[in-house]
Amino acid sequence: MSDPRRTSSKRVTLEEVARVAGVSRATASRVVNGVATVDATIRAAVQNAIDATGYVPNLAARSLVTRRADAIGLVLPEESRLAGDPFFETVIRGVMSVIGPSGVHLVLMTMDTNTRDQVVSDLRRGRLDGVILIHTDRDDPLPRQLIEANHPVVMSSRPLHPLPVTYVDVDQTAGGALAAQHLMSLRRNRIVTIAGPQHTSAGQDRHTGFLDAVADPDLPWTEGDFTRESGETSMVHLLRAHPGLDAVFAASDLMAQGAMTVLRATGRRVPQDVAVVGFDDSSAALACDPPLTTVRQPVADMAAEMARLLLARVADPDAPPTRVVFEPTLVVRGSA
Amino acid sequence: MSDPRRTSSKRVTLEEVARVAGVSRATASRVVNGVATVDATIRAAVQNAIDATGYVPNLAARSLVTRRADAIGLVLPEESRLAGDPFFETVIRGVMSVIGPSGVHLVLMTMDTNTRDQVVSDLRRGRLDGVILIHTDRDDPLPRQLIEANHPVVMSSRPLHPLPVTYVDVDQTAGGALAAQHLMSLRRNRIVTIAGPQHTSAGQDRHTGFLDAVADPDLPWTEGDFTRESGETSMVHLLRAHPGLDAVFAASDLMAQGAMTVLRATGRRVPQDVAVVGFDDSSAALACDPPLTTVRQPVADMAAEMARLLLARVADPDAPPTRVVFEPTLVVRGSA
Repeated sequence: MSDPRRTSSKRVTLEEVARVAGVSRATASRVVNGVATVDATIRAAVQNAIDATGYVPNLAARSLVTRRADAIGLVLPEESRLAGDPFFETVIRGVMSVIGPSGVHLVLMTMDTNTRDQVVSDLRRGRLDGVILIHTDRDDPLPRQLIEANHPVVMSSRPLHPLPVTYVDVDQTAGGALAAQHLMSLRRNRIVTIAGPQHTSAGQDRHTGFLDAVADPDLPWTEGDFTRESGETSMVHLLRAHPGLDAVFAASDLMAQGAMTVLRATGRRVPQDVAVVGFDDSSAALACDPPLTTVRQPVADMAAEMARLLLARVADPDAPPTRVVFEPTLVVRGSA
Repeated sequence: MSDPRRTSSKRVTLEEVARVAGVSRATASRVVNGVATVDATIRAAVQNAIDATGYVPNLAARSLVTRRADAIGLVLPEESRLAGDPFFETVIRGVMSVIGPSGVHLVLMTMDTNTRDQVVSDLRRGRLDGVILIHTDRDDPLPRQLIEANHPVVMSSRPLHPLPVTYVDVDQTAGGALAAQHLMSLRRNRIVTIAGPQHTSAGQDRHTGFLDAVADPDLPWTEGDFTRESGETSMVHLLRAHPGLDAVFAASDLMAQGAMTVLRATGRRVPQDVAVVGFDDSSAALACDPPLTTVRQPVADMAAEMARLLLARVADPDAPPTRVVFEPTLVVRGSA
């Protein structure tokens, strides 16, 4: 595996680059280290000199001084849970909006085999400065493990078990209540709901908020897993038991989309026969026909906040944990 | 910015960790460096010893030896072009499926301000070993710049200007022809098409393949930018000029979805009045009602191939460029 570029670099020093570029060593160093305030002409001269000499800067040596990787991890759920869900793309964009301009690397990971070991190992070995964890399950030991080792970590939702961790969330309970109040204001009285997974705080809290606001302990419901497929299956189930239903709250836009497909396939009109409200206000809401009335959580803003909180924790790992909770809003469109 | 964990680590050596764990220095080193074949009990003992001593391994020193960042960049288009397009999520999953298990970091970037400078600087400084470029525009100087500096790079489509670069693509021309042949087999003869952006090879080649197969030089068409919104605008335009049209080929699923919304809003039934064929077979195709007939490009497989090719180039940067072209397939659903 020959690599002339890398081999030859051993002989070129920063002094030589500076000499070829006709600048001081300090200026050459600033260009090499990506300092943003260097004049464009000088930057170009130094970069030409780097090309001409084949210089490769000694980044590893720099890391020995700062002890920072200048890289943070964004840990998404298992790969199989990402497909077709616009939520994660929005999270990535929100985090990128903060991390990108900072020059820090955003390292993407999914919670698959070995990921937990790799995250721990990368933090220990200084390959990552901190991690953002998206949607860990109730029984995942990773958050506690990272916090006990004092690694900078930010979570995307309230942990189901109490944990001294920094997290960002939306007021899920209030969001569920918004959906209920809207359906009741439309005088719907044969309401059903497709809840999210009850082993997540989002699934639990949206459901509790909805039920408390409707105040009907016998309200029919099923549990989905936030996917379109589970919305379809749940809707088939609920229609079989309650063919006269006139309103559905689905705890995610994708489940609402699946429910609407089944409603239409059984000859029901949305919203005339059955009103449908979703949760998220993702791109799936606009892809519905009619467009979906839904509870909006500002996912991109929440993700940007996670990134800011993590950078702050990396700068000061001993700061006490913070919690930031966003307010949901109801977006009324055609479906209810 | 106090950080006791990092400060105290300066005094702890690997020898001390090994002593506390009751293993040899070599074994402790293997655990610290993430070697997969260490027995789980021994690994746990060493990790306990690391926790107890506050040891932080000297990753930077290791990098001085290997001269590898063990990190590759995935450069997506500008952030504004990602929203609501399932293509990029599929690309990320495909690349992750190869990179994730390898222990190499996948660093995500979008082609926004400073990204070109950062990519060049990261490759020069050894913070990245190579990059995958997704959908660069015709006039983007970055691909040529990276190739001339002999940095490992893989592109996601044929460059419009000839360039000695490794790329993965689908046979876009053949895909356009598949769509045309299907609409002709349905005996549609008032066909129109919404092309993709003509400054991209995908937009050009799908259009050329479609036109050549239809063999009608006067076939009405407009140019969209692959988004749902541009599909809506284009459809409004085409319907105004050609109200009797009976078939549409849209060069992306999102544009087909936008077109279908407009067709329905003007009282036209799909497929009875107007047959619609898309391109991609993304999750948007299944969200259409009726589900979209479309030309499938195996995006996840293509992205995985890009990752494999890039890892190979990192291992051997002087290997000649390779091109891998996948075959498209027609997926027939309800819309045509």
